Order: sequence, then structure tokens, then C-alpha cells
Amino acid sequence: MEKTTIYYDKKVKLHNPILVVGLPGIGTVGSLVGEHLKTSLNAKKFATLQSPHFLHQVLMLKNGGIRLVNNRFYYFNNKKTKQSVVVLVGDIQAGTPEGQYEVNDKIVRFFKSLGGKKIYTIGGYNISSQYTQNPRVFGVATEDKERKALSKQGILIGQANGAIWGSAGLILAFAKKQGIPAACLMGETGMLEIDANAAKAVMEKLVKMLGIDVDLSSMDKIKTETENLLKELEKASGAQQEAAPGPKQPLSYIR
Amino acid sequence: MEKTTIYYDKKVKLHNPILVVGLPGIGTVGSLVGEHLKTSLNAKKFATLQSPHFLHQVLMLKNGGIRLVNNRFYYFNNKKTKQSVVVLVGDIQAGTPEGQYEVNDKIVRFFKSLGGKKIYTIGGYNISSQYTQNPRVFGVATEDKERKALSKQGILIGQANGAIWGSAGLILAFAKKQGIPAACLMGETGMLEIDANAAKAVMEKLVKMLGIDVDLSSMDKIKTETENLLKELEKASGAQQEAAPGPKQPLSYIR
Amino acid sequence: MEKTTIYYDKKVKLHNPILVVGLPGIGTVGSLVGEHLKTSLNAKKFATLQSPHFLHQVLMLKNGGIRLVNNRFYYFNNKKTKQSVVVLVGDIQAGTPEGQYEVNDKIVRFFKSLGGKKIYTIGGYNISSQYTQNPRVFGVATEDKERKALSKQGILIGQANGAIWGSAGLILAFAKKQGIPAACLMGETGMLEIDANAAKAVMEKLVKMLGIDVDLSSMDKIKTETENLLKELEKASGAQQEAAPGPKQPLSYIR
Amino acid sequence: MEKTTIYYDKKVKLHNPILVVGLPGIGTVGSLVGEHLKTSLNAKKFATLQSPHFLHQVLMLKNGGIRLVNNRFYYFNNKKTKQSVVVLVGDIQAGTPEGQYEVNDKIVRFFKSLGGKKIYTIGGYNISSQYTQNPRVFGVATEDKERKALSKQGILIGQANGAIWGSAGLILAFAKKQGIPAACLMGETGMLEIDANAAKAVMEKLVKMLGIDVDLSSMDKIKTETENLLKELEKASGAQQEAAPGPKQPLSYIR
Repeated sequence: MEKTTIYYDKKVKLHNPILVVGLPGIGTVGSLVGEHLKTSLNAKKFATLQSPHFLHQVLMLKNGGIRLVNNRFYYFNNKKTKQSVVVLVGDIQAGTPEGQYEVNDKIVRFFKSLGGKKIYTIGGYNISSQYTQNPRVFGVATEDKERKALSKQGILIGQANGAIWGSAGLILAFAKKQGIPAACLMGETGMLEIDANAAKAVMEKLVKMLGIDVDLSSMDKIKTETENLLKELEKASGAQQEAAPGPKQPLSYIR
Repeated sequence: MEKTTIYYDKKVKLHNPILVVGLPGIGTVGSLVGEHLKTSLNAKKFATLQSPHFLHQVLMLKNGGIRLVNNRFYYFNNKKTKQSVVVLVGDIQAGTPEGQYEVNDKIVRFFKSLGGKKIYTIGGYNISSQYTQNPRVFGVATEDKERKALSKQGILIGQANGAIWGSAGLILAFAKKQGIPAACLMGETGMLEIDANAAKAVMEKLVKMLGIDVDLSSMDKIKTETENLLKELEKASGAQQEAAPGPKQPLSYIR
Repeated sequence: MEKTTIYYDKKVKLHNPILVVGLPGIGTVGSLVGEHLKTSLNAKKFATLQSPHFLHQVLMLKNGGIRLVNNRFYYFNNKKTKQSVVVLVGDIQAGTPEGQYEVNDKIVRFFKSLGGKKIYTIGGYNISSQYTQNPRVFGVATEDKERKALSKQGILIGQANGAIWGSAGLILAFAKKQGIPAACLMGETGMLEIDANAAKAVMEKLVKMLGIDVDLSSMDKIKTETENLLKELEKASGAQQEAAPGPKQPLSYIR
Repeated sequence: MEKTTIYYDKKVKLHNPILVVGLPGIGTVGSLVGEHLKTSLNAKKFATLQSPHFLHQVLMLKNGGIRLVNNRFYYFNNKKTKQSVVVLVGDIQAGTPEGQYEVNDKIVRFFKSLGGKKIYTIGGYNISSQYTQNPRVFGVATEDKERKALSKQGILIGQANGAIWGSAGLILAFAKKQGIPAACLMGETGMLEIDANAAKAVMEKLVKMLGIDVDLSSMDKIKTETENLLKELEKASGAQQEAAPGPKQPLSYIR
């Protein structure tokens, strides 16, 4: 249990899989896209990543059970495109640089072992302090061919600068080493902790890149849903739990 | 000395042991329950856990000796139920996520090597900012069977949410992996650092689950005792000791 | 990917190489000298150092690509002196003592494997809170012979005291162990984050020690350039990017 | 270079050595006693401990050279008692619990390999916020026999409580494991950063325990000396040096 480990929940047969990484981060954009994609595709969980570099906590479930905080792999075998979509979602990212290198290297190597063909990581691009009504989508990619493909979809290439932190960035660097083309799509966002509007903008681009059908008319619901969720979380944050010495931090399902 | 290690203080013969984990945490509920159970059962120490992930300090003893901060295993062979009770108490929990994973994995594996059959971890559930006269007891468990058994005792199942930090939570997750049924009992508590009232509420449920006789009429004494202890600690905290560079923190016997 | 690693970008033939270490630090003096030297000599990149002890981030490039934060080795084969100059520049230094020991030990061993003959590390010596018009250059060295050579150039020996942090210091200590003579040149600096004046003072001494020709008349441009860069960075810092939980920090090209 | 290592500076022949550990800590009592003992005995350096758990810095020396921060072993072969005294002094202690466990375990194992017979660690016991004119000396020891011997010298046994942090404490615990009798002598001290008065009180007891002659009349000079040193350090602290990202902290020779 002392090392980052990926467990198979069940064996699956995948076809030239594309990975979408939707983990917690700026504006919760990654998690929102990942969770919505997973649900829309009715994707099934097949592997779980646990790491001592995540926090030392278990989450209480509605049925009275518990589970360790983790990252989870879901898959969907797309019959139209004959290509599997793998979605990575999770409660948390590693809390130290060393942990981040270990976890993200494991993710890329695992995806390579699945015969992985391409990776999209999702994030927020925090560019102003104001809510953006019509958020732009910025992109970076490890290969020129992919940058052109993104550009064709109206994703802005070469217009973002600075650093990409965590999984959304490191996975690109490690994928490059492993010879897997990879891109990061970032929704323009402001200071909102959960920005469903930015997530929707990314989602609209992503479904085109993946060649999948997702009910985009339903996308507006996310905004309302997450705003409701946000309110519930705020109410719930009055309740704190058994804590060991260490950093405390409220943990929400989508974060 | 560089790794977390469990030393046998003496060899013991245990019968289908149940482990109760009563370590420092919210409201000191875990430590209060662990220490009281240990004393009431006249349980004997048989093993000691030391870890470089605890703090770099030794405690000064009344006889002029010292010992490293640690976690300690006590046992009681219950003749009535033919089942041994093992109580884990300690001065401290590991201070990093990585340390927590290592220490709690060691605890579960060690208990499995003893032929362990079940684990109860004890904690506080910090739900309000006020002192609670009649604290409720919340529970989570790794198996449905155990959740029903807890529920029968009036322990609230599926009504707590959020995260359980540290040993009280991680031990459940690791026990599940090792195939040992495990539950966490949490006493409702407010902002008190030492909440004997919450501990008493948990204790009343715990003795029933363990099928042991503990003088519950004497339980009220804890409240007074700990309040007195608290006052003494406050007085003593004027005295600080030889310190190496690093985080400083007063350390009390029960914490 | 989990350990500090140095990759060859191309194989090179070096002649008794001298290493100049110009990494981020006080007053950005190290980076300024390193970057200017690299550019002036038209030095070519031949090796890249990556480390999990750097931050968990990738930098977005102008072409829409990315790269991990790293340290980079450049070389210049000086035909006059028949001696190669190797310049080490980078985005960042390791964030923990343990990381610093690992990274700098790797740097020295790598340079030794290249047949390295001498090392100069560059830094700032923060001696006052005011801008210094005519900054002095202070030096320390692992060997008496080198201290005399520095002294002859007007570099002040034995007049600085206190500690040298990070690569500029540890590389000297590790070079001593490996039998490679090493010195640190420090430009007197105040509270400026980017002090091109201090860098210029060091540069004037350094080119003499290296026996190379660098257009010193052009040195004054750095001052203006970096002041402009500084302004741009300040503007750009309004834009933040996809971030994982962890310490955030704006990252600039020269820092 | 990546692990804590002890290097022999020269091979020595020791006779049933006693170790005195005088490292930085509360009131600088440990360092003051260690440095004074080393100087009074004209003890010679024979081994150096370096560790990546110390800070990533080198110290600038008066001759223009540098050295890594470290801990240093000195020895004195006492012809009267036929017993060697080994004194451990240093610039720093490890900055994390894990580092402290590693370094102090190494110290005890190294001393055991020298045929070590007994250990005294020195510290301050911070009991009030006021300067103490006639500081008491408190003691703890791993064996009853030693506690009685300390008591006979007027050292207070069983009257201190709480925790001993760092080397002064961990070395006792590790010595116990290795079968080497060990004690800690603590001078009562207040809020002074450098308390020569407390150091003198410990010194008076220590020389008796060691059976050595040290000019105690000269002890009063320390007080003045350290007060002067303190003033110099304060002046010097205006000067800061080349720094890598990481925690900054002024470092003085005696601390």
C-alpha cells in the first residue's frame, strides 16, 4: 500500500483508446468535464489508482461504507468510431511535486499498457477575475499535427502562456516521452471555484475531437446542478470529521 | 530505526482478536475511549510501534527515564466471550500523508498476523461549534452485515458525510483490502479539545459491540478527570523543553 | 521519471570544459549571467536535467507546445583557448534540501563524466536594501590557487560571510569532493528581484576568467531589456493557469 | 551524497569513549557547552557527518573557502582517567522528523562502532520567560544507575516533564536500543537565544561526571563572549547571500 498503485476492477477489451483526463483543478473545469463525459457515455469503471501522495483520508458513502480517496478509470467502447474512450476522474491530485511526478508517470504508463493512442487533459485557464459569459478554449499539444487539428475546431493555439500545473500538464510531458500524442484543452475561467460555463465550452470542443455524440442541449443543466451542489457543499462544510494531525480541507465529490 | 517498526514486548496467545483503535484526534475521543478501555480491562502491553513519521521527540517519564513517542498495543483475553480484545493507544499519529499510509498499513498487517477478526476505530465527528449534552454516535463500516449490527445498537449509519482523516479512516480501507471487517464509531462533538462526553457516548455503544463488562457508572469520572488533566496541562505548558529546529507543539499524555 | 535524470539531446565533443552555473536565485544574477553568456557565445544545447524535486508544472511555449520545467546544458567550443565552455541555465531549483542535494550531486557527477576541469557558479550577494550603482564582486573558491586568481581580477576574497544557498553553494562542496576546482562569483545586490547591474559586474569579471570575448559594450542593454521583461511579466501575471493543489507561483523565463 | 554519511577525517585510537552531544537547540545551551568543552580540552576533529536532511547551504569561511553545513566529531584522550572524551558539535540539526531519525540513528551506530561506553546529550529546559540568575540543571537517563549518579551531583531527576526534541532526545532512545547508557543534562533557561549562564550551570555538572579538569574560573568569559558574538551576528545579519528557493534562515557559527 505504500506506493502509487493502479488496480484493475475488471478486465476490459479496448480499441485504440483515447484518454480524457478530468481531475480537480482551477475552476473545477477538469472534474466537471470528466464527470459529465463519464455519465453521458454511461462509461464503466475498470481501474482504480490509489496513492500515499493523496491525502490520508477515506470518504464516507451514503450507504454507510467508505472508500479511500482515489482516481478512477472508466471506459466506453464507441461502436461508431470503433475507438474506446477512457475517462479518468478523481477526488484529488497528489500534494507534492514528487508525488505528482510519480502519479502522473504511472497514469501514462498504464494508459500505454492499454494500447493508448491519444490523450486529452482538461483544465481551466484563469485569465481574469471576472465571470466570463462566452469563455474561449485554449489549447497546447505535444505534436504539430494535433495543434492544427485543435486549431480547426476554433481552439486557440499559442495564445496561452505561463505554466500548467499538475496532471493536466505533467501527463502531456510524460506522454511525449512515451510517444503518445497529447493535448490539453483549457476553458477560460475567472475566480469561480466551480465554473460550469467554462466546462461547457471545453465540452463542446471535446466531443467534436472525440467524434462522439453527447446531448449538448443538456449541457446547460450542469451549470444549475453544480450551482446547487455548491450550495449543498457550503451547508455541509459546517460538519467536520475525525481528523488526524495534518492539513485539514473540506473534500467534495466534485472538486 | 529508519522505518516504521512494530516490536513485540512479549509474546502473547490471542483468541480471534478484535482490535479497538483509540488514537489522538478530534475531541480526543479516540484516545479517551482507548485509554479508558485499556484501564478498565486491565489490559497488558505486548507490542510497540515506532515510526520516523511521528515527531522527533522523546517523552520525559516520572522516574527520570524517557521513551520515544509511539503507539502501543494492549491485550485482554476475555474468558466469557473466548475472544481477545486488543487496544491500540498512542501519543501521536504520523504527520504526513505518506507516513499515514505506511503506519496504518503496518498496523493492519500486524493485526492480521495476530489472526485478527474485526476492527473498530474510534473518532470524533465534529458537527457543530457547541458543546453537545447528548451526543449521537455515528458509524461507518466496510461490510453491510456490520452496518446492520451497528444500527441495531442505535449507531447512526449513512447519516455522516465528508472525510475521515488519519488512522480512524485509513485502517478501515486497509482492513477491507486484507479481508478484515472494520467499522469506525464517531462521537458527535463540538469545539472541545478533550470531549469526555462524546467519548462516553461511544463507550456505551462499544462495550455492547465487544460483549464486555465495563463499569459504565464510573464513566462520568472521565469527564471530571479530563477536565482536571486539561487544567494541569495548561499550567504545565508554561514549561518548554530542549527543542531541535522544527515544528514545536506541546505534547500531553492523552491527546 | 521518478528520479532526477540528465538526458543527452545530442552527443558532443568537449575539450577540458569549464562549467558556468547560472540558475535562478537572489537578484536573478545567476540566470542573467547564464542566459547572456549562452546567447553571446551562441552556445548549443546538448543535455537536459529533469527532476521530481522541481515543481509539478510544464511551461506553455509560443508555438503551442509544452515542456517540463528543467535545467539545460549548453556548450561552446572556444577555438582560441582550445577549451569548451559549458553553461547551465534553468527555470528553477529543487524545492527541498533533499532535492537540492540530489540535483546538485547529479550536476557535478555529470560534468565530471564530461572531463570537467573547473566550475564557476554565479549568484547575488544581498548586502543592503538599496540599489547599488557600482556593485562589487565577491568570491569564494575551493582551492587557494583559484582564490588568488580571482583576487587578481579584483574579486573580493574572504570579505563575504554567511551561507550560500542552493546550487551556487552545494555545487562547490560536491565539486571539492570530486576533485574539480570550483568558485562562486557573487554580485553585490540590493532588494531588486532582477538586478542586471549586479549581473553586469559579475559578467565583466567572468569573461576575463574564461578568456573569452563577449561584447561588453552591449552589456548595458541587459539592464533595459530585463526592466522591460520585468514589466511584461508583471502584466502577464494577471493570467493564471490550470493548477493542481499545491504551492502556486508565477514562473518566468528568466528567474 | 544523497544519504546521511559520516566521513573519517583521520583514524584515531579511542579508549572506552564517552560522547558529549552539544548541538544547536534551546538557549544554544548544547552548542555553548559542546564548543567550550572542545576548546578547553584542545580536542581534535576526526570525523564529519553530512546529511541531505540539513539545509542546502555552504558556509563561507574567513580564508575565502567554503564548507557544507555539518556535524563534527572531536576527541580528547584523557590520560588521567584513561578514557576518551568525544565531543559532537555542529551548525544545524535535521529539519524533518524522518531526517532526525536517520541522522541520530547514524550518530549512535557510529559511536557504538568506536566502542562507545556512555553518552551525555546537552540541552536547555525552557521553563520560564525570564532570565534565570541561578539556573538549575535537570536530567533524564536511560538507566537507573545513571540517574542516581546524576542525582548525587545535584542534577534534578524526575522533576522535568514534557518532550525533548531532536538529537538531545532521540540519541537517548537510540542509545537505549544499542545498549549504551545515556543521559540528557538540561540547563534551566528562559527566552534568551544564547544563554551562557544556563550553559555554565550544565558545564559545572558535566566536568564532574566526565572526571576532567576544565578551567571553570574562565567560564564566565563565555557569557561576555557570546554576548559580543550575538551583537556581531546581529550586525552581520544585514547581509544575506545567494539563495535558492526554499526556507531562509540566518546561520551563525554557534547556534
